[in-house]
Amino acid sequence: MTGRATEQQPHALAEQNVARLGELAGLSADEFKAAFRNHAAGVAVITADAGDGPVGLTATSVFSVSAEPPLFVFSISGQSSSAPTIERAETVVVHLLGAHQLDVAKLFATSGVDRFADLSSWDRLITGEPFLPGAPSWIRGRIINRMEAGGSTVIAVHALASAVTPEHADATPLVYHNRTWHHIGEHSQITD
Amino acid sequence: MTGRATEQQPHALAEQNVARLGELAGLSADEFKAAFRNHAAGVAVITADAGDGPVGLTATSVFSVSAEPPLFVFSISGQSSSAPTIERAETVVVHLLGAHQLDVAKLFATSGVDRFADLSSWDRLITGEPFLPGAPSWIRGRIINRMEAGGSTVIAVHALASAVTPEHADATPLVYHNRTWHHIGEHSQITD
Repeated sequence: MTGRATEQQPHALAEQNVARLGELAGLSADEFKAAFRNHAAGVAVITADAGDGPVGLTATSVFSVSAEPPLFVFSISGQSSSAPTIERAETVVVHLLGAHQLDVAKLFATSGVDRFADLSSWDRLITGEPFLPGAPSWIRGRIINRMEAGGSTVIAVHALASAVTPEHADATPLVYHNRTWHHIGEHSQITD
Repeated sequence: MTGRATEQQPHALAEQNVARLGELAGLSADEFKAAFRNHAAGVAVITADAGDGPVGLTATSVFSVSAEPPLFVFSISGQSSSAPTIERAETVVVHLLGAHQLDVAKLFATSGVDRFADLSSWDRLITGEPFLPGAPSWIRGRIINRMEAGGSTVIAVHALASAVTPEHADATPLVYHNRTWHHIGEHSQITD
């Protein structure tokens, strides 16, 4: 149980952590995952095409940074099959998924399959990027900055165009938490 | 309804968006917020002390970037009262909040109050950072990189120490969506 502190003695165990792990090593992957297990996230699918075919991946790392200018970020692992294309792409489309799109979230998180095999499930914007018409909303943006972080890249995007699909505008969002999928709405709301 | 596309004709309206807004302008703040309204996020409180007193803020912008090395990011607006301290801090503590901490989330999102007035609600780690013992888990880390994005800064953190509080280890996470607070758990899980 190293790496975990009780509420009664967090100081002492935090000291053990720092001493044992050292400032350079940091947490082990297991300790890090255990600490982040409590964190929930909205689910998005990011698509792009750098000229040699569509790519797309499911991401729980999208967040809005600034509304004015309209900027958001996401991260992508260098291990992702989509990474080489995202590396070269100038623009991306981020789809914020509704709970009715669990199958889409799973498809774009599955390795070794053609995620664009079903031609009826996607289309292209006039600007060329692949997009998924079933999402409650999507945002097209231009990549304006990249920050390396370990084997991953954090990518900043300037939002250029968006659509909120009227029939899904009130869709409950899809949320991911501790390897399970959730939908939120009135049933999950905290009243106070 | 400019800026919104119907599912039936997303191409045509996306074209209008691009033409109307221009590549440089991007979405208006209202259009951007409307598109992001469907995105849910886990809730965290980030604390730091650069030598002149504790600061803390509620953030829905925390995500894990890499487990090995253990890295996460968050963003902070330059408008935040905590920004000058976070700018100078070498280390921060990120608390991933449980649904039982709605009052904490609200306190650290309220302007013009002393967020550390209740001395029983917080303590300091042996390394000096303020921390909130009631959180299901917290992670202490060193700031390793910063990326400017509009008036905000995206900050990358290397996780050095963490604690998962045993009595809150199975707490349901606090989630924020469209100006409402949610708790997720078995009641919100999607079964398939």
